[in-house]
Amino acid sequence: MPFLFGSNEQLTGVNKSRLLIINPNATQAFTQSIQRALVPPHDMILDFYNPSHPHAPYSIEGSYDSVISAAACLKDLRSQLDKWSGFVVACFSNHPLTASLRELTSSPVTSILAAPLLLASNLGSRVGILTTSPRWVPLLTHDIHSLHLSQQCSAGVVSSGLSVLDLENLPREEVMGTLVRIAKEELEGKRDADVIVLGCAGMVGVDKEIQAVCRSGMVVIDPVIAGVEVCASIVRMGLSTGKLGMYAAV
Amino acid sequence: MPFLFGSNEQLTGVNKSRLLIINPNATQAFTQSIQRALVPPHDMILDFYNPSHPHAPYSIEGSYDSVISAAACLKDLRSQLDKWSGFVVACFSNHPLTASLRELTSSPVTSILAAPLLLASNLGSRVGILTTSPRWVPLLTHDIHSLHLSQQCSAGVVSSGLSVLDLENLPREEVMGTLVRIAKEELEGKRDADVIVLGCAGMVGVDKEIQAVCRSGMVVIDPVIAGVEVCASIVRMGLSTGKLGMYAAV
Amino acid sequence: MPFLFGSNEQLTGVNKSRLLIINPNATQAFTQSIQRALVPPHDMILDFYNPSHPHAPYSIEGSYDSVISAAACLKDLRSQLDKWSGFVVACFSNHPLTASLRELTSSPVTSILAAPLLLASNLGSRVGILTTSPRWVPLLTHDIHSLHLSQQCSAGVVSSGLSVLDLENLPREEVMGTLVRIAKEELEGKRDADVIVLGCAGMVGVDKEIQAVCRSGMVVIDPVIAGVEVCASIVRMGLSTGKLGMYAAV
Amino acid sequence: MPFLFGSNEQLTGVNKSRLLIINPNATQAFTQSIQRALVPPHDMILDFYNPSHPHAPYSIEGSYDSVISAAACLKDLRSQLDKWSGFVVACFSNHPLTASLRELTSSPVTSILAAPLLLASNLGSRVGILTTSPRWVPLLTHDIHSLHLSQQCSAGVVSSGLSVLDLENLPREEVMGTLVRIAKEELEGKRDADVIVLGCAGMVGVDKEIQAVCRSGMVVIDPVIAGVEVCASIVRMGLSTGKLGMYAAV
Amino acid sequence: MPFLFGSNEQLTGVNKSRLLIINPNATQAFTQSIQRALVPPHDMILDFYNPSHPHAPYSIEGSYDSVISAAACLKDLRSQLDKWSGFVVACFSNHPLTASLRELTSSPVTSILAAPLLLASNLGSRVGILTTSPRWVPLLTHDIHSLHLSQQCSAGVVSSGLSVLDLENLPREEVMGTLVRIAKEELEGKRDADVIVLGCAGMVGVDKEIQAVCRSGMVVIDPVIAGVEVCASIVRMGLSTGKLGMYAAV
Amino acid sequence: MPFLFGSNEQLTGVNKSRLLIINPNATQAFTQSIQRALVPPHDMILDFYNPSHPHAPYSIEGSYDSVISAAACLKDLRSQLDKWSGFVVACFSNHPLTASLRELTSSPVTSILAAPLLLASNLGSRVGILTTSPRWVPLLTHDIHSLHLSQQCSAGVVSSGLSVLDLENLPREEVMGTLVRIAKEELEGKRDADVIVLGCAGMVGVDKEIQAVCRSGMVVIDPVIAGVEVCASIVRMGLSTGKLGMYAAV
Repeated sequence: MPFLFGSNEQLTGVNKSRLLIINPNATQAFTQSIQRALVPPHDMILDFYNPSHPHAPYSIEGSYDSVISAAACLKDLRSQLDKWSGFVVACFSNHPLTASLRELTSSPVTSILAAPLLLASNLGSRVGILTTSPRWVPLLTHDIHSLHLSQQCSAGVVSSGLSVLDLENLPREEVMGTLVRIAKEELEGKRDADVIVLGCAGMVGVDKEIQAVCRSGMVVIDPVIAGVEVCASIVRMGLSTGKLGMYAAV
Repeated sequence: MPFLFGSNEQLTGVNKSRLLIINPNATQAFTQSIQRALVPPHDMILDFYNPSHPHAPYSIEGSYDSVISAAACLKDLRSQLDKWSGFVVACFSNHPLTASLRELTSSPVTSILAAPLLLASNLGSRVGILTTSPRWVPLLTHDIHSLHLSQQCSAGVVSSGLSVLDLENLPREEVMGTLVRIAKEELEGKRDADVIVLGCAGMVGVDKEIQAVCRSGMVVIDPVIAGVEVCASIVRMGLSTGKLGMYAAV
Repeated sequence: MPFLFGSNEQLTGVNKSRLLIINPNATQAFTQSIQRALVPPHDMILDFYNPSHPHAPYSIEGSYDSVISAAACLKDLRSQLDKWSGFVVACFSNHPLTASLRELTSSPVTSILAAPLLLASNLGSRVGILTTSPRWVPLLTHDIHSLHLSQQCSAGVVSSGLSVLDLENLPREEVMGTLVRIAKEELEGKRDADVIVLGCAGMVGVDKEIQAVCRSGMVVIDPVIAGVEVCASIVRMGLSTGKLGMYAAV
Repeated sequence: MPFLFGSNEQLTGVNKSRLLIINPNATQAFTQSIQRALVPPHDMILDFYNPSHPHAPYSIEGSYDSVISAAACLKDLRSQLDKWSGFVVACFSNHPLTASLRELTSSPVTSILAAPLLLASNLGSRVGILTTSPRWVPLLTHDIHSLHLSQQCSAGVVSSGLSVLDLENLPREEVMGTLVRIAKEELEGKRDADVIVLGCAGMVGVDKEIQAVCRSGMVVIDPVIAGVEVCASIVRMGLSTGKLGMYAAV
Repeated sequence: MPFLFGSNEQLTGVNKSRLLIINPNATQAFTQSIQRALVPPHDMILDFYNPSHPHAPYSIEGSYDSVISAAACLKDLRSQLDKWSGFVVACFSNHPLTASLRELTSSPVTSILAAPLLLASNLGSRVGILTTSPRWVPLLTHDIHSLHLSQQCSAGVVSSGLSVLDLENLPREEVMGTLVRIAKEELEGKRDADVIVLGCAGMVGVDKEIQAVCRSGMVVIDPVIAGVEVCASIVRMGLSTGKLGMYAAV
Repeated sequence: MPFLFGSNEQLTGVNKSRLLIINPNATQAFTQSIQRALVPPHDMILDFYNPSHPHAPYSIEGSYDSVISAAACLKDLRSQLDKWSGFVVACFSNHPLTASLRELTSSPVTSILAAPLLLASNLGSRVGILTTSPRWVPLLTHDIHSLHLSQQCSAGVVSSGLSVLDLENLPREEVMGTLVRIAKEELEGKRDADVIVLGCAGMVGVDKEIQAVCRSGMVVIDPVIAGVEVCASIVRMGLSTGKLGMYAAV
């Protein structure tokens, strides 16, 4: 069953808003990691969802996976979008689900690629992304351009060489050793980043650990937490998706 | 049956390449219009395809339609991609099918949005697009930016106010009257375009008529013909999709 | 006395963070308007400050006013920055106080120019700014470019013709009539904006009223509320200003 | 005699179009290499031309050579432009002959710098150029910017260290060894190119050989063949140079 | 005889530098107007040159004219470049003579298109160009982009509708009436320019007159005077053209 | 006493213009170095000024120092701006004094960051900056972008590792050794610069020495001399700061 309902449910009071955190791949273990890592905003209930296999791939590695996983999510979710006041698309890419949901509902939809880059631009001047496999370097470079965020990511994208599934399957010390090394050598060292955005939902929960081994003054941002915070802010401000332009109802 | 096989079949000889022209919406009448309007390259067989309803929408009006229609096409086509030496995605947008097919096959895939803009840049300095409904102005502006083609479209995108389905359903003189008026007033007049790209596959076959009423020296490009010509050129040159970057096999 | 302490003080509990909202001009009435309009985040105490005349100008109309007001604020605040966990610079410009504070403290500092544009980019594709006097059009265009946000403000900046002090001194219906007219005619009408950011701290509290008279689907953002929300998010996430680049301690 | 008439002449039938391939330098051996390497489109006759020395330089190494060679070509060709339906300027630069011819005739004119970059953008996401001497790196970087193609060449330009005349005069294995090494080390290796455009008309005919030694999935494009294919496509589509803007008749 | 030697000759002392002002078209009356309008720098002798007809056109209206006139000038001047310490190319375009001369000599070469835009960027934030015929709008837009000066000309290029030769041949009051009207209506009015650059060498001497009828605070720049001032500054500073990049000796 | 009056005073005649060279930091030794290094234009008197400590910092290392030093200068100078016909802000940054003075007076104000980059664009195609401490790399990168000069500085900014005060306090041979090494290795070598701009007012007078050890053909520009030359040119041309846009009187 792809839905995980009700973290923060015990805190439910009147007027509590409900956000849906969408992991668009079919690896439920990722969804559960995300759920464990998130402390829900005090005034929000977080629900979690991922599509089930074989309708969606276990990880998303490009355009084909994005289309198939978006279609699977949209089929599951389309008829019940009014249950939530906001949506977070928890794939570190310009996943087509984001724009599709913005057309289908006026509740705000945030992307875990855009949200951390936007917050980062308040904190530093050379933001870099630490991503998974080399494949993601051209893909993210393209996506960041599409979102008009190239200037918000001037230290660029570097690959850790780990696949998305490695993050879940390899021993934790091996994963951390690799992430720390690339963060320090490539982003802090060669590219002079002053802010690092973790470039995969599967890296949730390792931000402080990486920050601790960098030079004092480095900032490391968890993208899923950023996506939830930005979504919650927009919901709290009573703002909707604009319907007079690109996201008009279809 | 969504496939229309074999225009130019009668010309088949040895070594003739086969291209698939994909209309990703479910309106077969559009596919047929495209087929009628195209003169196949002498050394190519053109096949035609569209997904069937209700798996895909009758027209594509944004991200949701794009995702659903791409998923439908990919489901139909994925197992038989090796039948063709090249593919033309005949939707005037950065349709996600284009990048998805580039991952799944090394046969070239062209887009009827990118191909005419690329040809136009050889012919003039102020290229503009005449599209359908106002909705497509922000959508195409976004897509053109994503494809790094904003500078190749410096006269921008103007809407004719006609929907995609109007092109098929309204009386032809009404359609032509509107298209001609917007081309002359907005693109030739206010925006100083020297090349006009017709911004919808459904406008196939009206290029010369619009050109004839503009000032002498204006150039009007049919996007579907451009997409086929560019695809055929690439096939003829023996070139494939690059697999070491963004379009690596998934 | 330039400080206004303790909105939300009554809610103070353990671990409540304290933010300072800085109005860098000397018009205390503006500071009070801002205080009245803001509902403090549940876990934050908001303090308010403005410099006193004649050390700072009554309104900020360019580079000279920015420098003088920034120097006045820095003189008052420099020795006591550790009282707050975050700062909001409530002048709708790239006020030099923002970068100066980022050098002097590692607590996050947000700008009410950047924050609403960043939130807006999650909500629409054509964001425009409604500002005060014509003078601010070139000034804001420059500032938005400096902040790498030109692409996040593609509908540009329009002037209402009202000065900052007019907002406080003219009859409310006259002010609202003008703001509504320019929002509808210039931003909704001529520039096809789908999101409007109010371009002056002195417009606090009029967002919903303007949104109500625009076409359904328009989004209007109050910049001060946006600045506070983004600052509070960053504080809550435990993030600091990066110290390895542009904002290194002096 | 600078003209080489009639490749593909034997195939001449009714309605066959005639293209002129212009090598603007005075090295006839280059013109002959180009002629040997090109398979004419089935429906086109290719004629070949180069200016004679001392009116034009033996190779083109900058702005002075470009001006002098363009003037020589224009003097020879101006009165007889109506003999051809299309022109290919076979110098890998933004050679001023291209824009000059576009003013003088409405038959299409393609550039062997622009055409392969335009085709490459359909095939990959990181396109790089392998050029001759180091001098050409800043020259081509400038020219690509002038043509609005910087984003279509994101892997940049690398020099092989070979001069244009080295390509003709050095032993073939030495030339190939150098080209292969730079392609693999600099473009495939350090710059992550997924498409390589050969950056000199004098490299005609070596594309497949270089591709064969790169990692599987690399694409190598011959610029002269690309220039002819794009020109032929435009001629076949019945398109002309736009005369209402930059290329108006003088 | 195309040379006009020796304005400021009477002031010649020891160490006086000699600059050559090149009008690349064959209209000697223009050269004479330029000579009359220029007050030579106290430490410079200005010589004047234009090519003679029929080697060069009477006015320059595009790429063909540019190539032909550049070749004529280069033929006349190439062997005697060491007579001058600096060169001013007095055609308001990115005339190819500029780059060609930079290759042939290390004495500095300035362009009357680039120099006034560079000075203007010290004086205002919205610089616009008032040019001659409509043809020059796309040509100058292209040239300004090629020179990386688009951001230095954010108010763009407007045509006065007058041809280059009209400036010389029409009654002066008619010329001035037109120039003033377009400056006020289009550049001051619609485009909010705060600096106007006169966009033709043939407009030499009318700057103050146009400025006088604009709103107080407008700045109008004569491009030929700007070209001479910038060239003289560079000569005085003892700077040369850099020879390690684009302008290396051929 | 912060003012140093009257270099070139002895040459005063009728109509001699007076420029004020402003060193915005409190290190009078820097002001004196600048005075010694400058040869006043023949028709200008140069006055020199720096604010006194503790109103301004001894060197400027970021936004805070910029604001404080600008405020100090403005307090001293505001009432007597009409004494000078032009101003040079001799801090190698986008110092806020520049824009502030442009608002307060219509006499031209030049920046020693912008002026040398503008001159450099006439001399080469790859301009780089040699600055002091690493801190200045992100600061100058930001400032150059704000001034729309990123494309005029395509070889970027490199740090010599020397602080501003090191330039004054370390042995001259040690300073020169370091500057020469970084210029040759980083700018000439790795970044292919063809023009080097010295990135600190404190480097005044070392330009020719650095140029002499680079490869023949390199150009090195002293920013203070450039700032004075450009200011003097503008004064001589009778041009003012435009008052209809960003620099309108406050």
